[in-house]
Amino acid sequence: MTHPTADSVADTLAALRDTTPLVQSLTNIVSANFVTNVLLAAGASNAHIDNAHEAAGFAAIAGGVLINLGTPDDGTAEAFTLAADGAVAAGTPWVLDPVGVGGLPWRTGLAADLLKKSPTAIRGNGSEIIALAGLGNSTRGVDSASDSGDAVPAAVSLLDQAEAVSASGPVDYIVGRSTDGPIGVTVSGGSPLLTKVTATGCSLGGLVAAYLAVASTPLLGLTAAHAHVAVASELAEHNSSGPGSFAVAYLDALASVTPDDLRTQARIERLDV
Amino acid sequence: MTHPTADSVADTLAALRDTTPLVQSLTNIVSANFVTNVLLAAGASNAHIDNAHEAAGFAAIAGGVLINLGTPDDGTAEAFTLAADGAVAAGTPWVLDPVGVGGLPWRTGLAADLLKKSPTAIRGNGSEIIALAGLGNSTRGVDSASDSGDAVPAAVSLLDQAEAVSASGPVDYIVGRSTDGPIGVTVSGGSPLLTKVTATGCSLGGLVAAYLAVASTPLLGLTAAHAHVAVASELAEHNSSGPGSFAVAYLDALASVTPDDLRTQARIERLDV
Amino acid sequence: MTHPTADSVADTLAALRDTTPLVQSLTNIVSANFVTNVLLAAGASNAHIDNAHEAAGFAAIAGGVLINLGTPDDGTAEAFTLAADGAVAAGTPWVLDPVGVGGLPWRTGLAADLLKKSPTAIRGNGSEIIALAGLGNSTRGVDSASDSGDAVPAAVSLLDQAEAVSASGPVDYIVGRSTDGPIGVTVSGGSPLLTKVTATGCSLGGLVAAYLAVASTPLLGLTAAHAHVAVASELAEHNSSGPGSFAVAYLDALASVTPDDLRTQARIERLDV
Repeated sequence: MTHPTADSVADTLAALRDTTPLVQSLTNIVSANFVTNVLLAAGASNAHIDNAHEAAGFAAIAGGVLINLGTPDDGTAEAFTLAADGAVAAGTPWVLDPVGVGGLPWRTGLAADLLKKSPTAIRGNGSEIIALAGLGNSTRGVDSASDSGDAVPAAVSLLDQAEAVSASGPVDYIVGRSTDGPIGVTVSGGSPLLTKVTATGCSLGGLVAAYLAVASTPLLGLTAAHAHVAVASELAEHNSSGPGSFAVAYLDALASVTPDDLRTQARIERLDV
Repeated sequence: MTHPTADSVADTLAALRDTTPLVQSLTNIVSANFVTNVLLAAGASNAHIDNAHEAAGFAAIAGGVLINLGTPDDGTAEAFTLAADGAVAAGTPWVLDPVGVGGLPWRTGLAADLLKKSPTAIRGNGSEIIALAGLGNSTRGVDSASDSGDAVPAAVSLLDQAEAVSASGPVDYIVGRSTDGPIGVTVSGGSPLLTKVTATGCSLGGLVAAYLAVASTPLLGLTAAHAHVAVASELAEHNSSGPGSFAVAYLDALASVTPDDLRTQARIERLDV
Repeated sequence: MTHPTADSVADTLAALRDTTPLVQSLTNIVSANFVTNVLLAAGASNAHIDNAHEAAGFAAIAGGVLINLGTPDDGTAEAFTLAADGAVAAGTPWVLDPVGVGGLPWRTGLAADLLKKSPTAIRGNGSEIIALAGLGNSTRGVDSASDSGDAVPAAVSLLDQAEAVSASGPVDYIVGRSTDGPIGVTVSGGSPLLTKVTATGCSLGGLVAAYLAVASTPLLGLTAAHAHVAVASELAEHNSSGPGSFAVAYLDALASVTPDDLRTQARIERLDV
């Protein structure tokens, strides 16, 4: 039972920078470019392989797989299933980002099927986590209508399927399995400008896939991704004058943030779950 | 018979900021990211829902729907039809952006079918508006070969199908229905750098969908979107040194422009139609 | 037997700026936006026409066609074939960018089929060029694992199919047919930040398509595109503080670089092949 700390996330960023994990992304057409740029900036690599012919095979090569339900069609939906199966078969960690689940019935069914394949980690906003857990069913498009803290019981219940689950918001709530049962942390900080640039959430999902490739536990990897985003976005907000310049400064900051920056600036606290 | 003015577009921006309308975009893979960032920056929200399973249902939830013909395939073409039907059934305003219509026969057929479903507003460049009206059939890819003023008769003729129509260019020509017949305005200003960044036109289409959700008439909503773009792009040009920095400054400016900025800087004149 | 020089690439940029060639891109969802912005910034134009209904017909209108294998699906794969056939039939130059070929079996088959259609130029990284030539079969996702110089024999062998071939890297190796057999050049310079922004390689492919439309030989067009990127990226690196600001400065620099800049700053040397 080891809670992630600023020290352990700092060490995990150092491991990411040392190894440049390769992510396989299956993400939506709104975020595909930004997810890749975020991964490159942070110190990882990405290949967007989302066709049914190659999705399963590549999941055996990748260090981590992101499956994001943002803009599914019949073709990518098939690839999601194949990639998840390929990841499970190869022991590759994979992340489910249930964008829009709850309010949109077709993808909610896709998410339910994917959930049965035991994602390593799930990252969503509060509404999506609640919907995914079957505790609620309202979502306003792809934005969050719930406070992320309200999603903690849902996140804990999803530990039946996933090893770690996060609900993003002004404060991020993150839970994971331990030998002593569920444990959790919060990550504070970040910037409200993250909500004014599209794909910041989706790219956090990509970062989670990269961190899972190098972290000692899924909970630590998930927490490190959130902490990296929180610290970088604070720095970016300081260097920007609106959503356009924030997005640029955010990529610069993801690259410039060091393990020592996370060690001194990440605000991680234990959460009773 | 009320012509839009700088005052009425300023009030409409205030309404947009107060209500954060949710747009459903069905747009092309070149513009999907930028359309969403433009909507977030301007003060709206966006969900890109372009699969056939969810397009119709979401059109009942959205405040406005954008259907953009930039990169159609068989799947999204089906979703266009379903989204338009869903919007009409739910009374949700929707925008047709006929990218490339005229020179490209398949999508020209798609546009003809969509036109029968009575879009609330149509936004295109001069070539596209002329082609859509059946008054001409030449287009050079996705750029405009006609002066937008030449498209006014075509725009007026499209009022048989749509409530308001605009032809973008160095000066934007905008017409709409009124109880006294067609009326129109021009919006001047803007920046030539808008033509050096892709998806500025497509994202204007998205803004139109957002403004239709809050404006008292389609003509006012369409005009407010054009005016917001014109004023923001002038400011952005002032803060940029090329197309890359312009795109960044444009997003910042869309966010920073206030209703009072539109009131004092929007250049809107009556157009005899 | 005329090797490209800084003078001849400078003249080719002048021709590009004079004529604004229209590219048809069939590229992946990660790069579609950036490819178009790079083309607009550099002085060309782009239409992303990748559906099977329109791909062949538009290839007859375009000045150059880019076929990029980054994120193929069954629909775009069909469009690739149709666009290549349309380009060949119309005498339009076309570029094959074999992203990920070698490590990914399905697209490797697509590339083999496209190779039979005699691309005007091929642009890839060292791994991809080696894989395409059948001299090797390892690739790490979409990044290069080989030094680009190791790919020269493979590039020369591909001149059986293509008129000019390049392998990108810290130094770019470029070969082409001449009446005296294969000749080649290297292009040096550039910036390591190009590898920290996604789609810089894909957009180079787009630039190649634009330059092929105006260059006196495919080798010259291919070399001019590489030289434009090298000079612009050096300038951009000077004006940036990380990958986000580099991408912005790169677009500005692609637009601001003049023919005289290429004449004085392009570092092109003859390569014995």
